[in-house]
Amino acid sequence: MPSYRAPVEDTLFLLNDVLGFHNHANLAGFADATPDMVEAVLNEGAKLADTVLAPLNRVGDLEGCTRQADGSVTTPKGFKAAYDAYAQGGWMGLSVPEEYGGQGLPHTLNTAIQEFASGANLALGMYPGLTQGAMAALLVHGSDEQKATYLSKMVEGAWTGTMNLTEPHCGTDLGLLKTKAVPNGDGSYALTGTKIFISAGEHDLSENIVHLVIARIEGAPAGTKGISLFVVPKFLVNADGSVGARNGVSCGSIEHKMGIHGNSTCVMNYDGATGWLVGQENRGLNAMFVMMNEARLAVGVQGLGQSEVAYQNAVAYAKDRIQGRSLTGAKAPEKAADPIIVHPDVRRTLMGIRAFNESARALMLWTALQSDVSHRSEDAKERQTADDLLGLLTPVVKGVLTDRGFANAVEAQQMFGGHGYIEEWGMSQFVRDARIAMIYEGANGIQAMDLIGRKLPKDGGRAMMAFLGEVQAFIKDNDEDEALKAYTGPLQAGLNDLQGATMWFMQNAFSKPDNAGAGATDYMHLLGLVAMGYMWGRIAKAANAKLAELPARMDAKLATGRFYMERVLPETAMRLVRIKAGADSTMAVPAEAF
Amino acid sequence: MPSYRAPVEDTLFLLNDVLGFHNHANLAGFADATPDMVEAVLNEGAKLADTVLAPLNRVGDLEGCTRQADGSVTTPKGFKAAYDAYAQGGWMGLSVPEEYGGQGLPHTLNTAIQEFASGANLALGMYPGLTQGAMAALLVHGSDEQKATYLSKMVEGAWTGTMNLTEPHCGTDLGLLKTKAVPNGDGSYALTGTKIFISAGEHDLSENIVHLVIARIEGAPAGTKGISLFVVPKFLVNADGSVGARNGVSCGSIEHKMGIHGNSTCVMNYDGATGWLVGQENRGLNAMFVMMNEARLAVGVQGLGQSEVAYQNAVAYAKDRIQGRSLTGAKAPEKAADPIIVHPDVRRTLMGIRAFNESARALMLWTALQSDVSHRSEDAKERQTADDLLGLLTPVVKGVLTDRGFANAVEAQQMFGGHGYIEEWGMSQFVRDARIAMIYEGANGIQAMDLIGRKLPKDGGRAMMAFLGEVQAFIKDNDEDEALKAYTGPLQAGLNDLQGATMWFMQNAFSKPDNAGAGATDYMHLLGLVAMGYMWGRIAKAANAKLAELPARMDAKLATGRFYMERVLPETAMRLVRIKAGADSTMAVPAEAF
Repeated sequence: MPSYRAPVEDTLFLLNDVLGFHNHANLAGFADATPDMVEAVLNEGAKLADTVLAPLNRVGDLEGCTRQADGSVTTPKGFKAAYDAYAQGGWMGLSVPEEYGGQGLPHTLNTAIQEFASGANLALGMYPGLTQGAMAALLVHGSDEQKATYLSKMVEGAWTGTMNLTEPHCGTDLGLLKTKAVPNGDGSYALTGTKIFISAGEHDLSENIVHLVIARIEGAPAGTKGISLFVVPKFLVNADGSVGARNGVSCGSIEHKMGIHGNSTCVMNYDGATGWLVGQENRGLNAMFVMMNEARLAVGVQGLGQSEVAYQNAVAYAKDRIQGRSLTGAKAPEKAADPIIVHPDVRRTLMGIRAFNESARALMLWTALQSDVSHRSEDAKERQTADDLLGLLTPVVKGVLTDRGFANAVEAQQMFGGHGYIEEWGMSQFVRDARIAMIYEGANGIQAMDLIGRKLPKDGGRAMMAFLGEVQAFIKDNDEDEALKAYTGPLQAGLNDLQGATMWFMQNAFSKPDNAGAGATDYMHLLGLVAMGYMWGRIAKAANAKLAELPARMDAKLATGRFYMERVLPETAMRLVRIKAGADSTMAVPAEAF
Repeated sequence: MPSYRAPVEDTLFLLNDVLGFHNHANLAGFADATPDMVEAVLNEGAKLADTVLAPLNRVGDLEGCTRQADGSVTTPKGFKAAYDAYAQGGWMGLSVPEEYGGQGLPHTLNTAIQEFASGANLALGMYPGLTQGAMAALLVHGSDEQKATYLSKMVEGAWTGTMNLTEPHCGTDLGLLKTKAVPNGDGSYALTGTKIFISAGEHDLSENIVHLVIARIEGAPAGTKGISLFVVPKFLVNADGSVGARNGVSCGSIEHKMGIHGNSTCVMNYDGATGWLVGQENRGLNAMFVMMNEARLAVGVQGLGQSEVAYQNAVAYAKDRIQGRSLTGAKAPEKAADPIIVHPDVRRTLMGIRAFNESARALMLWTALQSDVSHRSEDAKERQTADDLLGLLTPVVKGVLTDRGFANAVEAQQMFGGHGYIEEWGMSQFVRDARIAMIYEGANGIQAMDLIGRKLPKDGGRAMMAFLGEVQAFIKDNDEDEALKAYTGPLQAGLNDLQGATMWFMQNAFSKPDNAGAGATDYMHLLGLVAMGYMWGRIAKAANAKLAELPARMDAKLATGRFYMERVLPETAMRLVRIKAGADSTMAVPAEAF
């Protein structure tokens, strides 16, 4: 049976020693997040993840969700109790403002907890995860009445949330959507249509489900300019806030998926369901983006979570499984063979995953910190800078952390040989579960297009220039530090590649947009490589400062960082070559010749 | 429902125009393989694959195999009839010598058919695939009596074969194996032990199953020097060749696997089962290697097969699914959106898989040709050269074609967005099925170690020098050809990287073996990249020669080759950087710090 241990120590090191979490005490909610408080929160979250969520991971995979004849959905055994424990622990509203019953703590902390939940049990963690996304949209775009009606119930966990975007004929291109909203004359609308792939669309964990649904109001313009956002509760809400009559929304069927079996992925039928407009008419995509951006970061975190749990189990196996002898002489002569962790090719695999996990965690927390600053700072300039970075990094966190997270789960599975392919060992589930994160909330190719088509050119490239400037300043500031040379040198090379690619797009993509499209995925990964390289630079600096205090732990960090610099970061050069190849050979074969 | 169409046209082009199959007419069996005959064989094989095997692929996944209470195993509905069609078509013995009922045709043709079967239905194709592997071992190491007893029945398909190596505590390190063989005094042995992961170990497709089993004869030396190979039929064979009493071997259970559900992967219990020594006592690994090498090539072919079928379905979806508009203006203005094949990021993905498939197919056929020459040539020098290349390329075909084949199945799945994650669409199955090929017949890390530790240094590096020389000669011979410059230029750069890496190992791996282990996987991929680059060079040359005759098809080939040269082959530089980083950072973190 696979196991999971939430990475509390590493998270604390990153927050306290690398990212200067405490420097933000001026932000709302941060003053309460003292180092002791942070440690206590993370330990509590870890306990929940390790002992309540993780043991149900395989149960969820085996049992899956069942749609009953009456359209209700039963979640796997134990999920309801675990969900209740999550809700009662106050985790749902960890970073929701106190006026709605939340704790108002930094979203950065919430992000760390999201990683724990995603690593322990991705399918289960999605139920609260989607609720948090729905709350984020209501917080920004909901009316006071809507906030009053829904938020405190959702913070309690009594009600959960969903997002309803995709339809059978459209996912990426939401302008094609057909779900209709007809005014009822009393301020509400009647929604009719079919939504697919609705995670947590119907289940038995909460007494009500708050669907956020995009639809086209009768007579609205075609395309994305005619899309509005609605809140459609499964049960209508009585004036006193209690759950009332059943609304006209139901689960038509459950999808048979490759993984995340414990999460109910539903086809949702809206048959004149009563809904209320959230935000302005025809500005639904705008409102939905709040939820989507939040969700995209959370999905990136899922990639990391699965990479971490797969890594932990691969390490345990590599230390336990004996097979062959070390090339440099027996390391466990008392045994019939050495544990396979002695083999360089095994070590290479583990180091590769580890080098990703630690820097991806840093990148995730750093990005979440930008989210906090952008929402909570009183300084407009600071807010803008943070918002720029947040926007730039969101597709990278989503796309790169899920691409690499999945690849790492595959690599970890490979450590097990034939046993990795057998379901009982649990490694297959990590691979199958991690796979979804590359797809939902915008497939990773869409993330790459968002980066290159929207985030990069926005405000004259201000965000990217700020990022490049920050990394360059870090290198320059530490130029004299001999102990950092092994990190800053390769980082400079990676940064040069990123600058080169950015420049190339400026010169070649406006005149020929296909050049941007053909290089988008490589550019997203190039930026991810450099961003994680920058994180490794900062980690190494912090590790050097702490070397005397914790030599073994910090030595391991420094070696892992060197591995990243020597063996992972050089991929930037390949990405640059591909980008500079442009779109010619990519587009040369006519569609009909495929 | 996914579909499959065997790539007959491309295979014919590769055999006839690129690889000069007809130049080998002097080899036994090749004279019979006239161009017309080859085309007819491929068309027949394609018909079987497309119309008989492929339609059962999803059935096999859904139904899986069932072990009944009496230990018998039921295969999915339709498998028996399909297997019979395969056997009756004479496919089992396509390249088996005529004296055993085979057709004696080139193994190269058999390899092409293996790709078709693997692409159409991997799980089903494994039953005959393992039988062919077992026949190969018996042909080389079996006694005349054993050949007479088993081979013609296997060629008929009346009996199938298996290979029994792995035990619960050992897979890679077979020296640890515990299965015992005790002489019965009549020339036979009583075998006792447990074998796991035995593909096609028990099933209802054939009237007998011929198990090839490695075991340790009582009193034999410890380790790999005490391993012998035995043939252990499920039913003992009567003197007249008919099936007799049940032998003491049975299926204890069936594994629950991530994929290839249609193939019965068994725990096999040997309880004093009667077996006969194949080849010499204590030389079992040697004999098993014949089977393993054959099987390794076949597994590489499986990687390609899954990549091809995933590609075909991704292309069909990309032409059909409409979403968004081309960056360069609407391409299907009559529709609500353009088919997604217009998007450069989609095209990049498809081109990447296609660039792999066509050159991997060339590499597979070229390697199979070496196998034919090494077995059938009457010229000792020619045999040796071919055997060198075959040995060198076997781990590359196995390791690189399965690593990339799986990655391509994942990429093809990604094209489908959320639909790719839903089992009904079939893309998930390709991913789950393709995954096993990276693991069995020696996990790919083992292939890399075989390459660098055995094949590279063998005979003073003769094989690698011959390979480098051949590629260099190709570049030189075509130096004046302006139409090939876009191919030979990048190929030279890749070749230089391969030479650099080879040199680096010569200088740094003997003194420090961990340097070899840490760079092994990168080296295997580096060699694979260059070998496929060389194939693209030869394909481009042949395509130029045929350009006037078939402009559209050859233009597409030339563009795909350029894509490979511009965007795939440059990966060699990254591989070289990683190799030259050596083992320091890889091995720096002590095992206990993981």
